[in-house]
Amino acid sequence: MSENRTEVASLGEFGLIRHLTDSFVNGHHSTIKGIGDDAAVIQYQDEKVTLISTDLLLEGIHFDLMYCPLKHLGYKAVVVNLSDIYAMNGTPKQITLSIGISNRFSLEALDDFYNGVKAACKAYNVDLIGGDTTTSLKGFVISITAIGEADKNKVVYRNGAKEGDLIFLTGDLGAAFIGLQLLEREKQLFKEDPNITPDLDNQDYLVGRQLKPEAQKTCIEKLAELNIVPSSMIDVSDGLSSEMFHICTQSDVGCLLYEEQIPIDADTYETALKFNLDPITCAVNGGEDYELLFTVTKDDAQKLYGLFGMKCIGQITNKDKGLILESKAGMKHELKAQGWNIADTL
Amino acid sequence: MSENRTEVASLGEFGLIRHLTDSFVNGHHSTIKGIGDDAAVIQYQDEKVTLISTDLLLEGIHFDLMYCPLKHLGYKAVVVNLSDIYAMNGTPKQITLSIGISNRFSLEALDDFYNGVKAACKAYNVDLIGGDTTTSLKGFVISITAIGEADKNKVVYRNGAKEGDLIFLTGDLGAAFIGLQLLEREKQLFKEDPNITPDLDNQDYLVGRQLKPEAQKTCIEKLAELNIVPSSMIDVSDGLSSEMFHICTQSDVGCLLYEEQIPIDADTYETALKFNLDPITCAVNGGEDYELLFTVTKDDAQKLYGLFGMKCIGQITNKDKGLILESKAGMKHELKAQGWNIADTL
Repeated sequence: MSENRTEVASLGEFGLIRHLTDSFVNGHHSTIKGIGDDAAVIQYQDEKVTLISTDLLLEGIHFDLMYCPLKHLGYKAVVVNLSDIYAMNGTPKQITLSIGISNRFSLEALDDFYNGVKAACKAYNVDLIGGDTTTSLKGFVISITAIGEADKNKVVYRNGAKEGDLIFLTGDLGAAFIGLQLLEREKQLFKEDPNITPDLDNQDYLVGRQLKPEAQKTCIEKLAELNIVPSSMIDVSDGLSSEMFHICTQSDVGCLLYEEQIPIDADTYETALKFNLDPITCAVNGGEDYELLFTVTKDDAQKLYGLFGMKCIGQITNKDKGLILESKAGMKHELKAQGWNIADTL
Repeated sequence: MSENRTEVASLGEFGLIRHLTDSFVNGHHSTIKGIGDDAAVIQYQDEKVTLISTDLLLEGIHFDLMYCPLKHLGYKAVVVNLSDIYAMNGTPKQITLSIGISNRFSLEALDDFYNGVKAACKAYNVDLIGGDTTTSLKGFVISITAIGEADKNKVVYRNGAKEGDLIFLTGDLGAAFIGLQLLEREKQLFKEDPNITPDLDNQDYLVGRQLKPEAQKTCIEKLAELNIVPSSMIDVSDGLSSEMFHICTQSDVGCLLYEEQIPIDADTYETALKFNLDPITCAVNGGEDYELLFTVTKDDAQKLYGLFGMKCIGQITNKDKGLILESKAGMKHELKAQGWNIADTL
């Protein structure tokens, strides 16, 4: 490590910003001015709305650099923001990225992080248009704002679900959560014995879902192709239960989910059992899957049945019915809202 | 303090967000959807561009809660972002605000902070439209993104200054820096003897410039009224020297500033001397003044002479002349670029 360590301090602020951002090329007509002025300038044509989403990621809370490679972290930090734009039925176009760093980070480490950011910008066709770079006393701080566009009449909110609508999900759930448990276990073992070899063989899928998630660009493209505008949509960041709670509360409806329809990957299922965890609980409350959860009319649902990555998991009901998960045995369980609790991490 | 302490943990994430943001009311037609979905939705009419600016503020680096009241901090955090939008000759319309907080903060403390944010939103007529709220292991983290609009043909960049243009500044410099020295001195004295009474009498102006700066909304309004579009513009956040460096580098020109024209408040001048600091150095390198620095043609300059808060401090020269500050005695000094250095704070 020491042979390749360039102190960030040797570049100064402006040199550092240039170094980190020089290789980003803007590709959108709407990007009129990117990095290098007081503000970025973007412009959309008529009939389009601008979408703005922002996330703050803190070391020790949202990521652990002991097992999260910086390149993956850069990729993930972008993707989780873009996921919010897709969840509005929009297309992300630009991001701003601010970072706070201590002198623990070498320039090479920052380059790894920015290479991940660049890979995500390329994969999702977004421009990096600005940000802020500052020192931090302790810990790595990341703040990203994503800017996107959508047709004015096709923006999808959380509040449009109607009784009788069907609930769809783009992929399987719980893998990111189980991936995190695997990484945490290896971290504990490593702390006890640094000579141990990590046992993550055949866990690529689970670990990958945690460290390098993808946003559901293709779902949005597919919906547009089929001329479907969902009645409500949200991305699964805090867990299915929490997201259903948002949709139902804001739409003033209830829901009935079928446990047997909830997609769980075989690796997730088996590994959950090895950890003595209930696979369905992991799928419902796990979070960080970044799949899209949306509701459509019965007519639109007909166009979606059988399509790859589109699974019907339940239906919207009257508010009085509450939020229900029906088990394979026909038992009804009430869903609970989740979300972080400040007490969890302190 | 303990009688009025509500633990943030008692609300949960969603309760906390609702508590903090419920009293914000959106006032702009362009704000289609604010807080409460995956992304905010804003829309501008034709002939307008959208401006985006973002800042990351970290406790211990950008602010010290020992002398910075949380309400003032909330106000300042918003204002410094709006300042960037004004510096593009734009009008800020919306902000997003993300915070990272540890359990050190009570709900009352957060309310103080948000009351400052709200006061700034009101004073500058901007809507709070989204954000992210998370725990932090240590220290208060603030990230703000400001969104504004400008006439497509009236956006002012840093790169348009031309040889012969005159350089204007909206207010006096160095006061925020001297205000910071006063607060730091009182902090040191307090640490040595907690029973000491702070000696900040008659220092309202200096301390106010540091703790509660204002953005130069009226300058932008005045320029529009006079039908003047500056050839370049920037806000003074890092110091006059650093900002002139940005304008000259990006415009490929030099500059000649006259020391005797640089506005320094009498309190700044006297207090600098008491600290054994050179007042002109404080004014040129101090930073955090949030005045606007801009260049205009000689014709436009005629309309500005004598107007309150508009002072000509020099002129744009050929690039070969460099960046020069001419002293009262006629000596020429080269300006140096500043900006933070990561080594300063570590």
